[in-house]
Order: sequence, then C-alpha cells, then structure tokens
Amino acid sequence: MNTKRVGARTVILKDPPSILSYANIGGKLEGKGPMAQCFDELSEDSFFGEKTWEKGESAMQQRVVEHALSKANLTPEDLDFIFAGDLLNQCIGSSFGLRDFNIPFYGLYGACSTMGESLSLAAMAIDGGFASKAAAVTSSHFCTAERQYRMPVPYGNQRTPTAQWTATAAGCCILGREGQGPFVTHITCGKIVDKGVCDVNNMGAAMAPAAYDTLSAFFKDTKTVPSDYDLILTGDLGELGHSIVQDFFAKDGVNMKKNYLDCGMLLYDLEKQDMHAGASGCGCSASLLCGYLLPGLRAGKWRRIVLAPTGALLSPTSSFQGESIPGICHAVCISSEK
Amino acid sequence: MNTKRVGARTVILKDPPSILSYANIGGKLEGKGPMAQCFDELSEDSFFGEKTWEKGESAMQQRVVEHALSKANLTPEDLDFIFAGDLLNQCIGSSFGLRDFNIPFYGLYGACSTMGESLSLAAMAIDGGFASKAAAVTSSHFCTAERQYRMPVPYGNQRTPTAQWTATAAGCCILGREGQGPFVTHITCGKIVDKGVCDVNNMGAAMAPAAYDTLSAFFKDTKTVPSDYDLILTGDLGELGHSIVQDFFAKDGVNMKKNYLDCGMLLYDLEKQDMHAGASGCGCSASLLCGYLLPGLRAGKWRRIVLAPTGALLSPTSSFQGESIPGICHAVCISSEK
Repeated sequence: MNTKRVGARTVILKDPPSILSYANIGGKLEGKGPMAQCFDELSEDSFFGEKTWEKGESAMQQRVVEHALSKANLTPEDLDFIFAGDLLNQCIGSSFGLRDFNIPFYGLYGACSTMGESLSLAAMAIDGGFASKAAAVTSSHFCTAERQYRMPVPYGNQRTPTAQWTATAAGCCILGREGQGPFVTHITCGKIVDKGVCDVNNMGAAMAPAAYDTLSAFFKDTKTVPSDYDLILTGDLGELGHSIVQDFFAKDGVNMKKNYLDCGMLLYDLEKQDMHAGASGCGCSASLLCGYLLPGLRAGKWRRIVLAPTGALLSPTSSFQGESIPGICHAVCISSEK
Repeated sequence: MNTKRVGARTVILKDPPSILSYANIGGKLEGKGPMAQCFDELSEDSFFGEKTWEKGESAMQQRVVEHALSKANLTPEDLDFIFAGDLLNQCIGSSFGLRDFNIPFYGLYGACSTMGESLSLAAMAIDGGFASKAAAVTSSHFCTAERQYRMPVPYGNQRTPTAQWTATAAGCCILGREGQGPFVTHITCGKIVDKGVCDVNNMGAAMAPAAYDTLSAFFKDTKTVPSDYDLILTGDLGELGHSIVQDFFAKDGVNMKKNYLDCGMLLYDLEKQDMHAGASGCGCSASLLCGYLLPGLRAGKWRRIVLAPTGALLSPTSSFQGESIPGICHAVCISSEK
C-alpha cells in the first residue's frame, strides 16, 4: 500500500526533491566561531536593526528567506508552501518574520528539531505532487531564548557545565521538483521519547534517547549502517548528548565513532568561546545545514549524509510542574545524487 | 506539473483520504451548551483528573486519541503519523499528551487554525503515499489559555463585548487511505494576513481578513460558489468576525448569508451562557468537526462542507511590543462522497 515507505517508519522519496537554494544568517558569536565563513550574513547587532530581540529574530527569518529566494532567482510567488517554526511562544519568530511574503504557510513546532521537520514536510509536499517549490525555515536567538526559558540576559546567571548556548542563527532551504541537487531521499519521522530526564540545564541528555531512537529506526528501515554515509549529524545534543548517542549505539554493537558529529559541537569553538557543552537552538542545525552541509555536498566533499535535528519538547511551565523533558528527532537523508 | 493542485493555492486530493474515526471531549461549560449531545466525553472536572490545568489539557489530548482509536478498532501502531498542536507555549498540550503513544509525531503551531492544518497535512501525507493512516489532533483549555494570554482565572477580570471564550475541548480525526468517508477532497493552505488590528480582545476582527482570503482563494480555485456547499464554517471568529466575513464577501457580490456559520457561534448559547462574541480556541472547531460535522455528514444531513479553522498568530510578547495580530485560516473541503 505505502509504496513510498521502507520499513516501519521511513519515507522514501520516489522522485527525490532537489534543494534549489539555501541561505543562513548568524549573530556576533557565530561570526567569531569556526563556521564564520559559512554564513551568508553575520550581524554584529543582536537586534538585527529592530527594537527588540523578538523582532530581531523575525527580521532574521525574513532576511534568510530573502537571501534564499534571491540566490535561486525566485520570488515569493514561486513558492507553493513555506514550512516554518521557532522556539518562541506561539512561534512569533515565524509568523511575524514571514507575514509580508504572502506565501501559503504551515506553522510548525518541533523545538530545535524544526529544520528536520520543515525539510521533511516540504520534501513530502513536493514528492506527493502538492507543490512545485516549497521552503523550510527556522531560527533561534540567544537573547529571546534566554529570557523565555531561563533568565533575562542582563541578570548574568551562572551556567552549569552541561548547559548549551542557543545559537543566534536562521536557515532557509528552498526545495523544488526539478534541480541539480542535493536531493532529499529519505525521511524518518521522530517519536516523542521521554526517559525521565528533568535537568533543564542538560538538554543533551534529554534529547539523546530520541536521536538514538530515530537514527536506529532509519538504519533498520533502510538496511544501512553508519559507514554507508559520509557524515551523520545530530542537531544540538552538544558534547554530552553526542557521547550518550555513541554509547547507546555501542551497546548495539554499532560503531558511531568514525563519522558521527553533532552540529552543537561545530558551530562554536567550545573552549575558546566558553560554550560549555555546545550550541543549541533551531538555528544551530539549520544554519550549519545551509552554510556547511549543503555547500559541502555540492562541492563533492560528501556524497550522502544524514541530518537528524533534535528537539526538547519542554516549556518552563512543564518543568515548574515537575515534568520530565520529552525529546524528538527528525532525520533526513540528503544525497548529492538521486 | 502539479497534478494535485487547482488554481493558485488549492490542493485537490486525487484519491481523497477517508475519515475513519473521530472523537471529541469537552469540559463543564461545553456540556451546558447546545452541543452537549455531540461530545464523546464531558468532564465536570476542569483538571481532567490531573493536578494542573496544563496537565489536564494533555490528558484531554491523550483521551481523545484513545477514543478515536477505540472507535476505529485501531491501536497506536496502526498510525503512521500524528499531526498535533495546541495553544500552549511550546505546544506542551500535545507533546505531553501524546508522548506515551509512540506514534511518529509532527508538531504544529497554527493557533486556533490547528485542526485545519493538521487535517490538511494528514490528508496530504496519505494521498501522497507516505502514510496509510494518520491522525489529526488538537485541544484548547479555557484556564490554561486565560492565564497564558490574559489574566489568571481567579483574578476574575472583566471581559469586553468582543471577547471570546476559549473552549475547553479537544478533537481527533483518524484518516485512512481506504474507508467509507467522509472524505477530504480539497485543501487551501492559509497565508498570514495582518490588517493591523491590535485589540487582543477582538480576535474575530483580527482573523476575519484571513478567513476571507482563504475562502475566496478556495472558491476561485475550485470555480465554485458558496451555494455549491451545504455548509461553510469558519473556526472561531465569533459573532463579530462572522459578520465581517459576510461583509467582505458582500462587497464582492457574493452572498454568504444562506449557509455560512462560525463554530464560535455554535458551541455555546451565547446569551444564556454569557459568552460575549462566542467561543474560540483550537478545541472549538476541532470538537465541532468531530462531534457535529462529521456525524452530520455520515448521517446525510450534509453532503459537502467547507471547514475553515482560523487562528490568531500573536503572543502576549508580540502585543506588549506593540505588534498587530496576524491571522491565518486553513480550509478543508469534506464530502460524504469521493
């Protein structure tokens, strides 16, 4: 019946949509890290020219979509759908950032896994015949996230060693039915996985079980092993979460030491920039996808990669009410060939 | 190219997915309104057996999915995807309510339009060949919404005449490739429409332009007129928003007086229950879809309807920062025949 599925959970795109264009944007600290050269735009101003950080985050989404459209010589009217979300309450980064484009809009909430979710849904919309072109967008902002989830930034509270740093970054991919690639070939939708971790300063540990769950399902469904891929990247588990995922796979006898990285370990120089366990936020995996992975695939650096953005589905309210932290991970296989 | 599109914005489902099962759940006031007989479960306890309202809202989502699965003799393993969202910050109603099902999960944020969005994406996932069965779920809760968007409930603040009452209700539809209907035949994705309304106590006026935009596109794309449908229903515009939509269409020479209603005007007895402009919340259109519209379609009361849930994409933060209120409306055409 489901000719477009393999195994229990993985979707196979019969006519893999092509990523036509991609763009990203980052803030000051992203411009001081090892990925500085990978950004289309870097802003020294954490307000991005606006009066509040929230409006600044919306400006990032607006500008990153403009960059991606411009690089592909497209106009907003060329897009059949835009799939977008962010971390802000009621996802206002997306709704205000994208309101002027007049593009049919599906709002998403996948916490920091949003780029995986938006890419998945955009790819299915195209392969399903419902769209010719669709965009996937997300953003995060250190200052909006800090004051929403933790403390107002000027308070200057101390951070635990397992804490991560929310990236001030956004990414946008435009997918189309025709194109030279890279191509989205497989999608594994995440399940909500909650192993009872309650420490809101240790998101890596909370999300690692979801990453393991989705990646295991992906390998099983596609009858592949990690060494079949040039690179496997989780979204923002940081150093600790990354090592937990390796441990989980090691127990299954699967070696993930060779080609498994985490975007949260790549965006900043963790030691020099004092970033503790690493980067986090929707913008972390989104900006690396659009500034590092996709250009690398186009340049022939890699042939086939798995990107598995991870998200922690908590809110301050759920934590105050004593709840643990559910995680989710949406995996997408991207290849330079169909 | 896009064989599954008609006109500029509307998706046509070539093999319309069938709604296999539906369920809803409501609270005390929903049980005192004119739709009381339309609920699968009504709870006198606004906590739904939990210790907080937020956990109560999650319990509603869990129970409504259990009801819908049970009515179709399905288990969670039968569902390829679940599309869900709610109004709570970080959509915790869905992530905590659905975490124990182990169903591949795409989280959505469409404010009160979420049932339109989740139904649309579930239907496309099935018609696109990516799923055999998928669920669409959403919820809202008066007490969680009040304290998040407005004032703590015990404060007892006064309400303006244009204010609406967030429904304490949830709805779940299970869609499948095979089945006896009703069938989802067309989908029109909403655009973000912001006409500059800033009054957070007048959501009907803020969302009405989005409803008009989506419904106009739907009629234009499908080359139909309102009288081609037995019923056209917006989500939660209330009395004022409903009359604004009628006025907009009247200016185009289109008569919407005959068969156009709004779910927000149906859920409660507006006068006796002192509900001001009407009901609102994701659960308003979702519970009426699952307890009133779908049973009516099955019973032959209507043959073809358009459901157009509406959402206001604001947050308290965006309003405090002086922003206007963007609206969105996702329309779905549901027919008792393929």
